[in-house]
Amino acid sequence: MPEVLLCEVGPRDGLQNAKHLMPTAAKKAWISALAAAGLREIEVGSFVPPKLIPAMADTAEIVAHARGIAGLRVVALAPNLKGCERAVAAGAHKITFPVSASRAHSLANVRMTPEQMVEEVRRCVVLRDGLAAAQRPAMEGAVSTAFGCTMQGRVPEDDVVRLAELLVDAGVDSVALADTVGYANPAQVKRLFGRVRAAIGERLDGAHFHDTRGLGLANALAAYEEGVRSFDSSMGGLGGCPFAPGASGNVITEDLVFMFESMGVSTGIDFDLLIAAREALVRGLPEEPVYGHTPQAGLPKGFQKAA
Amino acid sequence: MPEVLLCEVGPRDGLQNAKHLMPTAAKKAWISALAAAGLREIEVGSFVPPKLIPAMADTAEIVAHARGIAGLRVVALAPNLKGCERAVAAGAHKITFPVSASRAHSLANVRMTPEQMVEEVRRCVVLRDGLAAAQRPAMEGAVSTAFGCTMQGRVPEDDVVRLAELLVDAGVDSVALADTVGYANPAQVKRLFGRVRAAIGERLDGAHFHDTRGLGLANALAAYEEGVRSFDSSMGGLGGCPFAPGASGNVITEDLVFMFESMGVSTGIDFDLLIAAREALVRGLPEEPVYGHTPQAGLPKGFQKAA
Repeated sequence: MPEVLLCEVGPRDGLQNAKHLMPTAAKKAWISALAAAGLREIEVGSFVPPKLIPAMADTAEIVAHARGIAGLRVVALAPNLKGCERAVAAGAHKITFPVSASRAHSLANVRMTPEQMVEEVRRCVVLRDGLAAAQRPAMEGAVSTAFGCTMQGRVPEDDVVRLAELLVDAGVDSVALADTVGYANPAQVKRLFGRVRAAIGERLDGAHFHDTRGLGLANALAAYEEGVRSFDSSMGGLGGCPFAPGASGNVITEDLVFMFESMGVSTGIDFDLLIAAREALVRGLPEEPVYGHTPQAGLPKGFQKAA
Repeated sequence: MPEVLLCEVGPRDGLQNAKHLMPTAAKKAWISALAAAGLREIEVGSFVPPKLIPAMADTAEIVAHARGIAGLRVVALAPNLKGCERAVAAGAHKITFPVSASRAHSLANVRMTPEQMVEEVRRCVVLRDGLAAAQRPAMEGAVSTAFGCTMQGRVPEDDVVRLAELLVDAGVDSVALADTVGYANPAQVKRLFGRVRAAIGERLDGAHFHDTRGLGLANALAAYEEGVRSFDSSMGGLGGCPFAPGASGNVITEDLVFMFESMGVSTGIDFDLLIAAREALVRGLPEEPVYGHTPQAGLPKGFQKAA
């Protein structure tokens, strides 16, 4: 068993922010290549209104494809009950709900307060619990803007801890903390993950960092040292960043794999096959810039992956 | 007093690897702007044969200029006794000697074994000790390729520890460990700094990382956690990297300052004035790409520097 679980979010967080649409067939090929490289969890899309985000219009078909890949846990994002119903119908193994800890961001993004979003998640849990056992997806509450917000500025840590507790009370299986806008620093990461774990224990599972200010890997290292073993990342650093060049969105999968493997922390991911998946990404979205230091520099001479 | 000392190596490690020459007047303006931003130590050049590295031909004049800046510690690199004599004549406050832990790299680079380089450093110490007290520069042995080598591959940790001990025996005031080719990982950084400190104690002072595989800040964080308080970095990520775009050379000063200050670790550096120094760099070397996430993204809303 790998020591850390990497969840590839490029097909969702990356493609929803890309300037061009990736054709459905190319998405399927990319996801298959990612799974072949050893990714065991992939966030393949989101169930949002297609008019709002056309890049996610084919998510049901993508979920169906991904479910056919042996050993892959298929994750989909849902922003509300309607999206949850679609995710359940499509057969996602895990549904993640973004719940913003910033009141300003929550109101602007989903026209609900954080507390109202928690109630929406509770309704989704009720829906899930009414399903036959074999059909029930896992449910995750992802606390977004947990480390700061471009609208509100500072987000009080107490608000994040309370929101995590409310989500557990609403019935989610796990809680992740997301640095949506790249404000986090390693000291804050250790402090906040420690506080949330003290509040909700092992239900805290997952870190989502953006590399907006270059601290993505340092924050992932800090989270790892604090006991986190599940990390979101995005191939080529796709995702959510208006700054170029060199400024990337999500923490870069390729570099995160190199960091962990070179530390002797196994990811279960094969680097050569990961580069093959990167080629599939570039073929499917040739106009989009992809980032990553390790793919350009290559592995060190004599490199050995974690045992 | 700042909690960490950043030594800006861009004028040396950056400019010696740049494709174009920065005019002497522009170098002076850049170094003055760096000092105005709060940099208290700057490696301003190297005393190598001008025919080999034309970009360093004006180092004596640059040292003289930098010595006129109040409160600035002026560092120069010397690869041998001849360079040391020139650095002493120019009035450098500190001279750093690169000594490669990789036998293959050392032979290819300076045509000396690591042990022969240590003897060269010993001759430099003898030269220094013969000077009047007020004229004696500090001397640092920088163990290069300490974390791996593109020629030799793995560099045994025992070799690094022994080389650090030999350098202390030769009379240097301090020893730094350098990841010359960007092979280091955070686990290795902690282990090796810990081993070298156990061997030579507080004479271990200084970490020099390259960002070749994206781990520069994560490695700096690991070194900080291991007790290191002195870090080399390069404005705009200039320095020694054949990979582009996005793949940068040295760890980027601007992002390193942001990481430490956001963690509450004071650097003594003002971010706005650092950006002004970056503009001076771009004016002096307009053809060279400069990197850095934080300069592009800006500081977070409500950001407060370390007290």
